[in-house]
Amino acid sequence: MTLEKATRRRGAELENAILDAVWEEISEKGYGGLTFEAVATRARTSRAVIYRRWPTREDLVLAAVRRLGERTPTVSPDTGSLREDMLELLRFSNAHRLGMWVVLSVQLAGFYAETGVTPAELRTRMLGERPSLVPAIVARAVARGEARPGLSERAMRSAFDLFRSEAILRLGPVPDEEIVAIVDEVFLPLVRP
Amino acid sequence: MTLEKATRRRGAELENAILDAVWEEISEKGYGGLTFEAVATRARTSRAVIYRRWPTREDLVLAAVRRLGERTPTVSPDTGSLREDMLELLRFSNAHRLGMWVVLSVQLAGFYAETGVTPAELRTRMLGERPSLVPAIVARAVARGEARPGLSERAMRSAFDLFRSEAILRLGPVPDEEIVAIVDEVFLPLVRP
Repeated sequence: MTLEKATRRRGAELENAILDAVWEEISEKGYGGLTFEAVATRARTSRAVIYRRWPTREDLVLAAVRRLGERTPTVSPDTGSLREDMLELLRFSNAHRLGMWVVLSVQLAGFYAETGVTPAELRTRMLGERPSLVPAIVARAVARGEARPGLSERAMRSAFDLFRSEAILRLGPVPDEEIVAIVDEVFLPLVRP
Repeated sequence: MTLEKATRRRGAELENAILDAVWEEISEKGYGGLTFEAVATRARTSRAVIYRRWPTREDLVLAAVRRLGERTPTVSPDTGSLREDMLELLRFSNAHRLGMWVVLSVQLAGFYAETGVTPAELRTRMLGERPSLVPAIVARAVARGEARPGLSERAMRSAFDLFRSEAILRLGPVPDEEIVAIVDEVFLPLVRP
């Protein structure tokens, strides 16, 4: 009797357990410490069950990153104020997505070195087809006269790029005054009419 | 007869050879592959000579990073145009300092995990007391009427922060059109009077 028969997990439930285990292993030990054995133990399944779906460690990482992107909570602020919407977006990332950015930058360093995949490619895979929230926030601000129309994509994502840069340099939460400074000293002066 | 007596290197010359070897080892193998043995071989000295100066791997990394900061070439553009000065600064970093940023973010991941030192702290150590070049560039632009006075430190370093963020995501050179976009779509609109 295999473990799978014992626990009767099938399809998505089993896959989620495996991919969660992959992410937890990477978070704790880094890519260098990722083994099929450890993932199987943590997900209470067998190596064969994992190999059948994802034959290499690279496949496992890519699948885990994509699944994490699909399952990470999102927020879609609509407070009526551009400043408050942006602060809420960045504070939410700081509270809920920070570990993800840190793991993507530090714990997966060995993965980038071994596979040639870049953090940018992994980020695209994680975010999938999900549209950025900022253009919608800015479009409402334009309608209210709080932002100028025709802003470039680069300008719209500047706040989030600066936030992520701070998080990666600190390998931890960005102090709230830094988040406020990014919004008040860079983003708002840049997008105002 | 020790190797040092054989090659008669002393003081700064020997230290530079050792710290260059540390950086080359980290660049090739990452922090995980850094050993006193490999550094000694590469620098053509003995482990004892290294231990005497830097007793731990952490000491070695910190010393190598500081020395690299001191020895990395710098540029101080003064073209008479804010846009050209900023482009020159970022293009110089892209050409000459990129490997350093990539090593600091990826190859030293294990160092951060092991020591609790953050990339921000290592960056401060690397840059030392050297003042950022941007305030001087912006001060001249203010005098020419190209930038508004009283810009915050966060606004002044936004271009370089966005550039470094791109470099780390790509683990390679930032395409020139991205550099131009950072300057034209974020930095200049933000600092103009």
